[in-house]
Amino acid sequence: MTLSIERQHQTPSNAIAPAKTPVSLSTSIGLLKRQLKSEGISSFEDIAAAIYQHRQSQVEAGLYSYDKFTLEGSKGETQLVCPSTGTLHHCIVWCINHYTGLNRNQKIIDKVCKAVQKFGTGSGTSALSGGMSSLHKEAERRLASLVGKESALLFPTGYSTNLGVISALPGTNDFLLFDREAHASIIDGIKLSGKKFASFKHNSVADLEKKLQKYRHQYENVIVIVESAYSMSGDLAPLKEIVQLKQKYNFHLYVDEAHTFGFYGHQGAGYCQELGVTEEVDFIMSTLSKSTASIGGFIACKSKYIPLLQWSANSYLFQACLTPGDAAAILASLDELAANPELIAQIHQKNSYMREKLTGMGFDLGHSQSPIIPIFIPEPETLQAFNRDLLSEGIYSVAVIYPVVKPSEGRIRFILNASHTYENIDRTLYVLEKLGKKYRLI
Amino acid sequence: MTLSIERQHQTPSNAIAPAKTPVSLSTSIGLLKRQLKSEGISSFEDIAAAIYQHRQSQVEAGLYSYDKFTLEGSKGETQLVCPSTGTLHHCIVWCINHYTGLNRNQKIIDKVCKAVQKFGTGSGTSALSGGMSSLHKEAERRLASLVGKESALLFPTGYSTNLGVISALPGTNDFLLFDREAHASIIDGIKLSGKKFASFKHNSVADLEKKLQKYRHQYENVIVIVESAYSMSGDLAPLKEIVQLKQKYNFHLYVDEAHTFGFYGHQGAGYCQELGVTEEVDFIMSTLSKSTASIGGFIACKSKYIPLLQWSANSYLFQACLTPGDAAAILASLDELAANPELIAQIHQKNSYMREKLTGMGFDLGHSQSPIIPIFIPEPETLQAFNRDLLSEGIYSVAVIYPVVKPSEGRIRFILNASHTYENIDRTLYVLEKLGKKYRLI
Repeated sequence: MTLSIERQHQTPSNAIAPAKTPVSLSTSIGLLKRQLKSEGISSFEDIAAAIYQHRQSQVEAGLYSYDKFTLEGSKGETQLVCPSTGTLHHCIVWCINHYTGLNRNQKIIDKVCKAVQKFGTGSGTSALSGGMSSLHKEAERRLASLVGKESALLFPTGYSTNLGVISALPGTNDFLLFDREAHASIIDGIKLSGKKFASFKHNSVADLEKKLQKYRHQYENVIVIVESAYSMSGDLAPLKEIVQLKQKYNFHLYVDEAHTFGFYGHQGAGYCQELGVTEEVDFIMSTLSKSTASIGGFIACKSKYIPLLQWSANSYLFQACLTPGDAAAILASLDELAANPELIAQIHQKNSYMREKLTGMGFDLGHSQSPIIPIFIPEPETLQAFNRDLLSEGIYSVAVIYPVVKPSEGRIRFILNASHTYENIDRTLYVLEKLGKKYRLI
Repeated sequence: MTLSIERQHQTPSNAIAPAKTPVSLSTSIGLLKRQLKSEGISSFEDIAAAIYQHRQSQVEAGLYSYDKFTLEGSKGETQLVCPSTGTLHHCIVWCINHYTGLNRNQKIIDKVCKAVQKFGTGSGTSALSGGMSSLHKEAERRLASLVGKESALLFPTGYSTNLGVISALPGTNDFLLFDREAHASIIDGIKLSGKKFASFKHNSVADLEKKLQKYRHQYENVIVIVESAYSMSGDLAPLKEIVQLKQKYNFHLYVDEAHTFGFYGHQGAGYCQELGVTEEVDFIMSTLSKSTASIGGFIACKSKYIPLLQWSANSYLFQACLTPGDAAAILASLDELAANPELIAQIHQKNSYMREKLTGMGFDLGHSQSPIIPIFIPEPETLQAFNRDLLSEGIYSVAVIYPVVKPSEGRIRFILNASHTYENIDRTLYVLEKLGKKYRLI
């Protein structure tokens, strides 16, 4: 199952200073960085040197798993290159967010090629400077219509959608209130806004209400920011209950649908649509790199907010538009979602199947419900060893560690994809049961 | 030259509150926003309403020019859709940053289609989570090699490259010093870093030295951030002189080559390479949406900095990779640049030709040198009228206004593109001379 390929070498030009802080080899780079900071290491040269050396030691010990790449792109089953060992692995892949598997749909591929032939390869400038084409405008129109809002703005990435919108939206007397498990793009948007903010306990409607009681009267507007499904836990948000609070507290609601858009709701309209709360949600955001198999992001809302966002979000004003090919992939994916409702049904069927089996084996899947299935392995050395064993069995997913999750909440995620076969799932379940027992997780 | 097309309507669901501040119709949205803020309007609902209404008034008066889009993508000469009038204009386009015109190169288009057929349409996750393919790794290797650095990291956009790297790089006792005309992505990166910073006068080596004298001894590292060419003025940076200061003040130098990479230096290696200062520049950054006719960005530097950036830049950690098609466009563009040195020569020849003619007519082109030719029209009403007249003559460029440039420094840019023919240039020069006289600019 492994093939020898040319080994990649990195030859730094300078000798690297030794790390000032002794840490165990299994310490993550995020934790090392935190430790260096806590010990007062304040020059980036010293931090970079310590991290570089630590990473090299992990690579040499076969403990660094974040340098792998696919030989021929993302797929449910693919050839994975391990540059540190110079080997090629045939793997079932569980860390790709293409829920619908549409990145390998031949009709979409052909439409993308047709668009690139007609529209060229790049857009060449930002939306307000002439970078938009009829493809981009059509994508905005259809995205707004699908999620049930008057208008949508297209951004070149999901991260920069949250960053741009959240940093630009609030006025000087507005307040931001966000779920503690919110994605980095939301946190960075809040930081960049320079406005006042607070967080509430993850998925806790009670804590949200407590915070609203505390802050609502102090500000003109409060914008509550949540995700419909959380990327690291697979938890779905209690949107119905959150929406009910609006009547009492009169806030604005912003929902990031990155991990539900395209495979929840009618034709993939999203989780807000599925729950029937679209009207009550003021801002619906999603990335376009997941279920629509492209890249980009959008914000959908009432038309009255659009000019403010266009002229205030730096990532809209100062960032080039999506390429025409990427815009075409979005449109073609929306076509497929509309034409094939069974595609969405399949993802949820596979999710139920895999969850049931894992729960039956005794795995703790937390509160997860969406097609993101986390297996929690808090002890770093066990997490690394488990993951290494998985790879040697031809199963690939990355270990999620600090700073992506809290240091005590390391996990491996199994993200279901319509292109995973039941054979892929069964093989993975077999290996997970074996390793779960070996590492006493079940 | 105009065709009737379906007019696009926007129907806001709510009645819009009147703007609280009376402003003239020619006031830009950026200035209106600033005015609202200065008058203490602190709720985003009020700001959004005022901006929306102002934009609608501008649209109705035919004064809003930022809603145009191309019918079939970016080109030197193309069909432009004006949704507010429902008309289609055949135009020579001057606001696209595809300096090399490679977005319409048939060899590149064919390579992109081949890659999409083989690698699929999306990458599906971030670089450290398995989103990288052999195409992405090859792009990193070749970009590093071309600009003359050990390593490069690929980001999905140029904006998010600057944002991520600059926010992640400095330690707690490091300092950021930047040119006052720096791009918003640099400013946002500095803001997000939360570190101490100062600016120096645009392109002033003397003022940079003054600031170094003031700040250098207070910090462990000072990172000086400049652009090789400035996007709004077309000014080239005095990199040789800046590099000389390094011997005395021992700082790090970060150069954004967005507007020089691909068409300055050997095979488009950039302006640092052209000036022979690559070794002295610690970080070379560029977008990939301009001369390489795709989207994305990269940072190139010594390998020792790479793990720090990978694990600290949120826009690297938490953003999906470029699509395979976009990665292929970058690689194919680098192939073309290497194979066709005359492509680069042509851009500079056309730049010299157009500059000479405009200067001969009496236009003030400021200190610009790069293929970005600005014509300064400080008075907002003249700028709008000039731009409207240009469009009616089949010449399209957007007016650059606040917040992109200072309120008193409005301009129209003419960005040369290898795909502009001398016929395009001569026709544009003819119209510019006519309008320059009409509006007493020459």
